[in-house]
Order: sequence, then C-alpha cells, then structure tokens
Amino acid sequence: MKIIYSDAHKGHAGALEMRGEAFVPMAECPERMEVILLALADAGLRDVHAPKAHGLAEAARIHAPDFLTFLETAYPLWEKRHGPSRAVFARTFGMRGMAQKPQMDNIDAMLSAFTFDIFSPFVRGTWDAIRSALDVTLTAAEMVQQGTREAFALCRPPGHHASGDLAGGYCYLNNAAIAAQMFRDQGAARVAILDIDYHHGNGTQRIFYDRDDVLFISLHGRPEEEYPFLLGFGDETGAGRGEGFNLNLPMPPGTRIDTYLHALQAAAARVRAYAPDVLVLSLGVDTFDGDPVGGFCLQTPDYLRLGQVIAGLGLPTLFVMEGGYAIAPLGQNVTNVLTGYLQG
Amino acid sequence: MKIIYSDAHKGHAGALEMRGEAFVPMAECPERMEVILLALADAGLRDVHAPKAHGLAEAARIHAPDFLTFLETAYPLWEKRHGPSRAVFARTFGMRGMAQKPQMDNIDAMLSAFTFDIFSPFVRGTWDAIRSALDVTLTAAEMVQQGTREAFALCRPPGHHASGDLAGGYCYLNNAAIAAQMFRDQGAARVAILDIDYHHGNGTQRIFYDRDDVLFISLHGRPEEEYPFLLGFGDETGAGRGEGFNLNLPMPPGTRIDTYLHALQAAAARVRAYAPDVLVLSLGVDTFDGDPVGGFCLQTPDYLRLGQVIAGLGLPTLFVMEGGYAIAPLGQNVTNVLTGYLQG
Repeated sequence: MKIIYSDAHKGHAGALEMRGEAFVPMAECPERMEVILLALADAGLRDVHAPKAHGLAEAARIHAPDFLTFLETAYPLWEKRHGPSRAVFARTFGMRGMAQKPQMDNIDAMLSAFTFDIFSPFVRGTWDAIRSALDVTLTAAEMVQQGTREAFALCRPPGHHASGDLAGGYCYLNNAAIAAQMFRDQGAARVAILDIDYHHGNGTQRIFYDRDDVLFISLHGRPEEEYPFLLGFGDETGAGRGEGFNLNLPMPPGTRIDTYLHALQAAAARVRAYAPDVLVLSLGVDTFDGDPVGGFCLQTPDYLRLGQVIAGLGLPTLFVMEGGYAIAPLGQNVTNVLTGYLQG
Repeated sequence: MKIIYSDAHKGHAGALEMRGEAFVPMAECPERMEVILLALADAGLRDVHAPKAHGLAEAARIHAPDFLTFLETAYPLWEKRHGPSRAVFARTFGMRGMAQKPQMDNIDAMLSAFTFDIFSPFVRGTWDAIRSALDVTLTAAEMVQQGTREAFALCRPPGHHASGDLAGGYCYLNNAAIAAQMFRDQGAARVAILDIDYHHGNGTQRIFYDRDDVLFISLHGRPEEEYPFLLGFGDETGAGRGEGFNLNLPMPPGTRIDTYLHALQAAAARVRAYAPDVLVLSLGVDTFDGDPVGGFCLQTPDYLRLGQVIAGLGLPTLFVMEGGYAIAPLGQNVTNVLTGYLQG
C-alpha cells in the first residue's frame, strides 16, 4: 500500500473550538497523523512517499477562485486587522437574504461568506496544511491513475464538509472531490466516492449533487441528531442529471457493526451497479465507539471488516483521510481498514 | 412622553457570548432597562405604563409561522435534548446549498436554519422576554395610532437584526418592523423607520427591501469594518417596488457628532420628502464613545441634538429601544434623545 504523507500539516495546530460552554483545543490535531503513521508502521505498512508539489489548478476545478483566495489570505488578513488569535472563525454568517459576495479585503465579511460554521479556524499554518493535504491527495491520486492498485493519502485537514465555496467542519478544500475530478479529467468515465466518515459528507454531496459522472455515497450519523443537521437525509438522491447518483445511508446513534455492515454492503452493491473506473474512499474512523465527536459504537477489530468489504469491490482505490478523533485507538482503526482491504 | 415597560424581560439573562477567545456574559443584559428607567425618572420622565397583552397575530404579519414556533420552543427543546446551558446557539449554519427547512423537533437543525449568528442565545426566560418586548412595542404603537404624539417602547431584547425568519445579533422578533406593519394595517399610508443604532438594521432592511410603503433608513458603522459585514452598504437602495425606499448611511470608525449630524440631517430630509404618516425610531445608543460593541465617538450631550433633529420632523413618533451597552452612561444617553426630542 502506497502511503503519501508530508509533515507540512503540522503548523495547522493550536486553534480553539467550542465544546459546550468552553473553548477547548481543536480535536482535529497534528497528533492524529503521528499515531496513524506509527500504527501503519507497526503493521508493516511503511511504503511512505513524500507528495509532489502541485499548483492550485486541480483545486480550481472544484473550488471558486475567490474561495481559494480566502483560504490563502484568511489568517494574514485577520492578524493584520485584529492581531494574533487562536479563534479565527466567523461569528456571524451570510445566510439567506444576505449578500454572498464579500469585499475581498474584509476578513470578517469573507469569513461570514465562505464558512458555514465555527469549526474551521485559521492559524498561521493553516494554508500550508491545506496545500499539503492537496499535494498529498493529488500525488496519491496520480499513482492510482498511473496504475497503482491502491494508495492512501494520509492528510489533514480533512475535506468532505467543504463545498465549492464554503469551508466548515474542520474542512477547507475537499480533497476527495478534487481527486475525483482529477480522475474524470484524466479519462475516467465514472468515479465513485464512498464516504465512511461518521459525519455526512455534505460538501462532497453538494459538489456532485447534479452530476451523474460521480456517484456519491455517504454512511453517517443521521441528521436528526447529528451534525450537519440540515443535510444527510435518505431522500437526498441528487438533482437533474444527478438524480439517483447521491445515496445517503444515515444510521441512528449507537449503531454497531452489524447494522453498519448492512449499510456498507448496500453501498457496495450501488457502487458495483455503477461500475466506476475508480473508487475514492473518504476514510473517517470517527465511527469508533468513544470518538469525542462521534456517536456510533464500532470497535477496533470491526474496521478490518470494513476494509474487506471495500476490497470486495475490486476497484482501483484511493483512500483519502477524513475524520477520527479518539487519539489512542485512531492509528489501529485506520490501519485495520487498510489491512482488512489488503487481506480482503 | 408615554413610556411602556414591563419587568417580564428579566428572565432573558445569564447567557454567554463570545468575545475574542473567551466566553463572557452577554452585553445585552437586564440591567440596561434598569439604568434607563432610573435616568428617565431623574429627568422627570415618569409616565410609565404596563403593556397590554397581545397575541402573536401582529408578529405573524412579519415573521414566518415556523420561525415563531422556533423562538417559543428553542430553549425547552434544547434542554430536553442537551440539558441546561448558558450557550444555546447554533454552531453550524444553513448557508447556501443547504436545506433551509429544518425538522421542527430537531433543535440543532432549527438553530442552524433560523439564526444567522452566535449572538442570539436562548435561556429559559428568553421567550417571555420576546413576548414582553412585543407587548411593550405594540402597546406603545397603539397609543401613537390612537393619537398620542409620541411613545417610548422601552423593551428588550432588541429587534432590528431579526428578519422574517432569521434571528441574530441579540434580536429575535423585529419589534420596530412589527410596529410599522401594524401602523400600515391600521390605515397609515406610509411609515418611515429611522434606525440610529450603531449597527446596520439588516433585519428591518430585509423585511421591507422590496416595499415602497415602508421607508427604511439606517445610520451605522460601515460594513467594511463592522457587523454584520455583508450588509449595510450605501448601494443597497431597495428592490422592485422598494427601489429608492432603502437608505443606508454608513460611517467610518471614530465618527463624531458633526459627521453624524450631517448624516442624520440627510436622513431627515429623506423622511420629509417621503411624508410618512408616522415615524418609527429604532433607538440604539451604542454610537456612544466607549460602547463595548460600538465604534463611534458620540458623547452624552450629543444625544440631545439627535432628539432635536428627530423632533424637527414633526411626526407622530414611536421610539423602540434597540442597542446600547455601555451601562454607566446608557440611561442618560437614552434620556437625552427623548428630552432633546421633547425640547426640540
């Protein structure tokens, strides 16, 4: 298993997020990558490669130009206006009836227009980390494009909540979506994205909602109880040409492996029927029992079975890291998906 | 000067808001009403009346039914799901591309769909305070409707950031807008709303943006630097039939009385040209030098001059309390507007 990784994410650290009535260090932290690398190495998965540098051309196929400018300039603009901060995020949001195009030198307006929640803070190293995740993902995708059977983009920040012009939920660029578009642009007729992160992949859904050339399937905590609350329902099936090419499989709190596998097998059946050229796997393991921002009850050995089902699809597969915040078991959970896949 | 007031707002207290990287008690607090009442009494303004109870019929002329249900049920639904909290507000927001109609038993989704920022928290007493502000405003409006030359609705929470289906910025129901609509429904041909709160009255603007029967004028800190950032520009002049009936007069940080009076006189000229039957004055004094959430430099004696300009319009006038958070001078600042008006 080719693993692509770079240390360049490490400066995206030290921001605060809100938990209940207090500020706490952001759960999406650099240590996540370290424990995953260690567990992978313990399992013999040591074929780690540095990413190749990419420009923003592939990202610009998915994301709006102003949005890219926002991501790059957000922290410097904030610091210039308000001084250093560990809590650079919007307090007010450009909802319906408000202007959606901010002045591009007004960081407060930009945050209000280009983020949908308070969970994607900016620090000085955020843009470098975003770029690094993009490089990691594209390098891994190119390997698969060039014939490598499977590759793992071990990156952060994650991406699946980000849409073309909105960041949120720890996500800035939608790495998986950018990779899927790259496969399409390089000649794949059909791409499937299977999102097994605990949270609904609302950003990816929005990006491909009216398209039939990218199938999106998300397994997640149901929006009745779970973030992002307004999206992720089973009746969101796509629009226009995309009708029938968006499949949400929401599950209730406390979901265990049997129920989860049932949904995953339904997802696998849909992928098979679609017959894509390549699979992009949005790999979150915040489905783990005890994840600080999850609500399912999967156990560490269960992740082997997830990997086996994915392997059963028999497709060239790009794994892209998304969520998973229970640090102690995180490495083994991720490793188990990959070893299950390799054994599958 | 008839003053309408009720203690029923006092339970809307104890919530937290974010200031920089910390939670602090909400600046929009019950003590605001107490210091205003005291200063009014010191100035001989003691004609204080209790409000008459109203239903929600007048509010429903401005606000959507689901939104009213949301305001009433928000805290109980939150407490039932998450337990007691001093920080009941949305963390994630239903921006473009997301569903705008929440399930009406899912408080997290409702907060995401019906609020546009983190500055309108709910506590157990919030709904009673909202109802009380509505009663206070409508009772004062009815007095003016029935021939009383001027009346002061001394109410909280304020209203001018709230639109038909969005709460934010300490605001829930738009008291001034509801009063303006009541005047229209009772026979006024034209109503002018003049908003002198430091912040742009984005909610009121949105409500009447495409109407020519209610003129809206707002003097405020310019959106280049100031909340709500995405609205309040001078080129927002109305739409459709409302074109030309929305006037924003944004001013830069540090604005002093001379500049302010220049804008206020321009506003007064526009009101005169419109020749309304009645004036609704959205009365905020967070233009005061040193207001914790303001950026202008008006001094306490300056407020006498504001009142004089308003009096010069010679219109039946309903004063509706909006913002003003520098507690020590708050009472005198508000009183000066009213005494300036009465002397004017």
